[in-house]
Amino acid sequence: MSKPFGPLPPEFATQTGELIIGGRAASAWVAEFGSPLFVYDPAIVAARVDAFRAAFPAVDLHYAIKANPHPGLLEVVAPLVDGLDVASAGELQKACAVKPAHAISFAGPGKRDAELEAAIAGGATLNVESEGEAARAIIIGDRLGIAPRLAVRVNPDMELKGSGMKMGGRPSPFGVDAERAAALVKEVVRAGADWRGFHIFAGSQALDSQALIETQAATLMLAERLSVEAGHRPPSVNLGGGFGVPYFAGDMPIDLHAIGNALAENISVSSLASAGTSFAIELGRWLVAESGVYLTRIVDRKDSRGETFLIVDGGLHHQLAASGNFGTVVRRNYPVAVAQRLGAAAQDEVSVVGCLCTPLDRLADRVALPTADVGDVIAIFLAGAYGATASPSAFLGHPSPTEVVVRRS
Amino acid sequence: MSKPFGPLPPEFATQTGELIIGGRAASAWVAEFGSPLFVYDPAIVAARVDAFRAAFPAVDLHYAIKANPHPGLLEVVAPLVDGLDVASAGELQKACAVKPAHAISFAGPGKRDAELEAAIAGGATLNVESEGEAARAIIIGDRLGIAPRLAVRVNPDMELKGSGMKMGGRPSPFGVDAERAAALVKEVVRAGADWRGFHIFAGSQALDSQALIETQAATLMLAERLSVEAGHRPPSVNLGGGFGVPYFAGDMPIDLHAIGNALAENISVSSLASAGTSFAIELGRWLVAESGVYLTRIVDRKDSRGETFLIVDGGLHHQLAASGNFGTVVRRNYPVAVAQRLGAAAQDEVSVVGCLCTPLDRLADRVALPTADVGDVIAIFLAGAYGATASPSAFLGHPSPTEVVVRRS
Repeated sequence: MSKPFGPLPPEFATQTGELIIGGRAASAWVAEFGSPLFVYDPAIVAARVDAFRAAFPAVDLHYAIKANPHPGLLEVVAPLVDGLDVASAGELQKACAVKPAHAISFAGPGKRDAELEAAIAGGATLNVESEGEAARAIIIGDRLGIAPRLAVRVNPDMELKGSGMKMGGRPSPFGVDAERAAALVKEVVRAGADWRGFHIFAGSQALDSQALIETQAATLMLAERLSVEAGHRPPSVNLGGGFGVPYFAGDMPIDLHAIGNALAENISVSSLASAGTSFAIELGRWLVAESGVYLTRIVDRKDSRGETFLIVDGGLHHQLAASGNFGTVVRRNYPVAVAQRLGAAAQDEVSVVGCLCTPLDRLADRVALPTADVGDVIAIFLAGAYGATASPSAFLGHPSPTEVVVRRS
Repeated sequence: MSKPFGPLPPEFATQTGELIIGGRAASAWVAEFGSPLFVYDPAIVAARVDAFRAAFPAVDLHYAIKANPHPGLLEVVAPLVDGLDVASAGELQKACAVKPAHAISFAGPGKRDAELEAAIAGGATLNVESEGEAARAIIIGDRLGIAPRLAVRVNPDMELKGSGMKMGGRPSPFGVDAERAAALVKEVVRAGADWRGFHIFAGSQALDSQALIETQAATLMLAERLSVEAGHRPPSVNLGGGFGVPYFAGDMPIDLHAIGNALAENISVSSLASAGTSFAIELGRWLVAESGVYLTRIVDRKDSRGETFLIVDGGLHHQLAASGNFGTVVRRNYPVAVAQRLGAAAQDEVSVVGCLCTPLDRLADRVALPTADVGDVIAIFLAGAYGATASPSAFLGHPSPTEVVVRRS
């Protein structure tokens, strides 16, 4: 009984023969850049941006660069989006290289004074996560003689149902509880800061379109209610993101148009919108996950007590989430293929294991694949988000992953 | 209802007032090296080595450097042990800087030709993991004109009960199945390689002393049986490791003397031992875990819907396992303390969360601690193994962790 694996992204699902990424065969990528290797195709990101624009014509699009901060990818993606969201001073620096500071916002619960200062001095917006952090930002702004651009991050009183990670409706290190948000807005305005609005993030990796529709509606209502309570209209409201991508067998993509239509309808009757508030959706994973493929060559093929192992030169030190060790309780298989034999009939049941000397390093568990042997390349899909930077790359002393971005002339 | 956390290691458990590491106060370490910070005390490793030597006087001790390959620590530990075990060419290089090659062995299921060549050329022992890998090593040895030092890693036909990670008795990417090991030994000897013996590893992080005793006994018997089958006596047998350390509430340390006595008895009646075979135990975690403390400063303290969060400047990008996201199914709390208030009564129920903008970044979940506020330092213990290098340090663009080793003049 083989175990299922997730669906290949649409750009790869219909291919047959050798896997082509950005117009080049997988083997050509590996021949030039070695193995293991991440290849990112910005054309796939651009296609997601286009789809978003078509479905959400009146909503700004932000890219949460933590999903994939590779400078080569960022350079191509930055001009396609309206804003970049960052989560550290390091990310802020990367974002500032490709986007004006007024289009950058900085969220995260443990910002140090030096990080607050870097954002304020550079003119980026801080999504303040607590009353204490707001107070520190205001003091730093005073010292610098700059009115800091501050948005108030709200811990909403509802949560995103069907979300991979729930982030609202309960105690949270993120944002101030909705019950206290209006008071904080008043304080921020009173202190002379440049209040930029609200940041309300209810969850992530949701595949339930109806839940996303309801959460966005609730987020919009919450923003309206808080604005009335605060007595100030927000220049902008970041509605969060949470759009999931299909990682596992049975997962279906979200219905972008249904979500966009519902949001447009809700915005059309919103008093904030008619008064000039702009709205943004912040996406990381959904924009970039499907643009990346992890290619790794088979070093050994061995049989042990009835199970066949394809041992590859990559592993969880590059693709932790694919090994089921990051943010998942039950291990399930990411989409996987033998790169030279797309569309071929499955002949073997194999487990793809990484080269690390730990039983945790399993990239695909008992999947049915076309026959593959030493020297063949295995492709793990959905490697464009939370892959290279979200993995313990120093573990066991192997080389850092190589990442390349498809360039078109 | 607070949740429990694990016991502080013996060197710290009896301290009161400010936490002292290697003779210096935690605040002094942070003042000099900043926060977050790993501090490793080699005196604690040396104490574990002494305890091992007392319990296992006739067994060699190897250090598996993947547990903590920090060069400063390695330099101090290498002279205390008989051998170093490595898992990549990168680790091999580090080991060769501090130990002669004949005392180094290299295990791992996906060794590339370049890695095999580095080990053979340098004179380290390869623990071959499959017939295919052995064949590649022999070809490379022929090409270099060097008889490669090869030990045969065996996938045993029993497993270590009560082990955190089971590695035997079932299909495995590690080693050749016991059923085929003798044939591989014959082939290795026939090909003119320098056969070094067996490497038999049945599991890791076991706290059940009786299970360890039984597993070592079974491993010894397996080695004897395979030697008879192969018709060759192994120069040495690596019995694996698997000694656990107490991470969580209720965990108790292993009974080293009971294990040592039982093994000594079994060795005393072993025909291998009387014929001159030497035995080694390979330990990583048990030697170094308790020597390390992760110190991280509180950046924010906030209340949200009845829960108090201490938000620190460290996080899962340095201490992934402590967040419960690496190799554990159920999240439990590592030993934790307010560094300035050891032994003080618990006053608050708090959750310690890292600075990463993800709900996964929780270092302690609803624990009872003495009151702590912004600027205070939180200590997470058992940070000496699988900490800094086993965490996604590039995640969210924060600085790499600082690691310091206590030096005594």
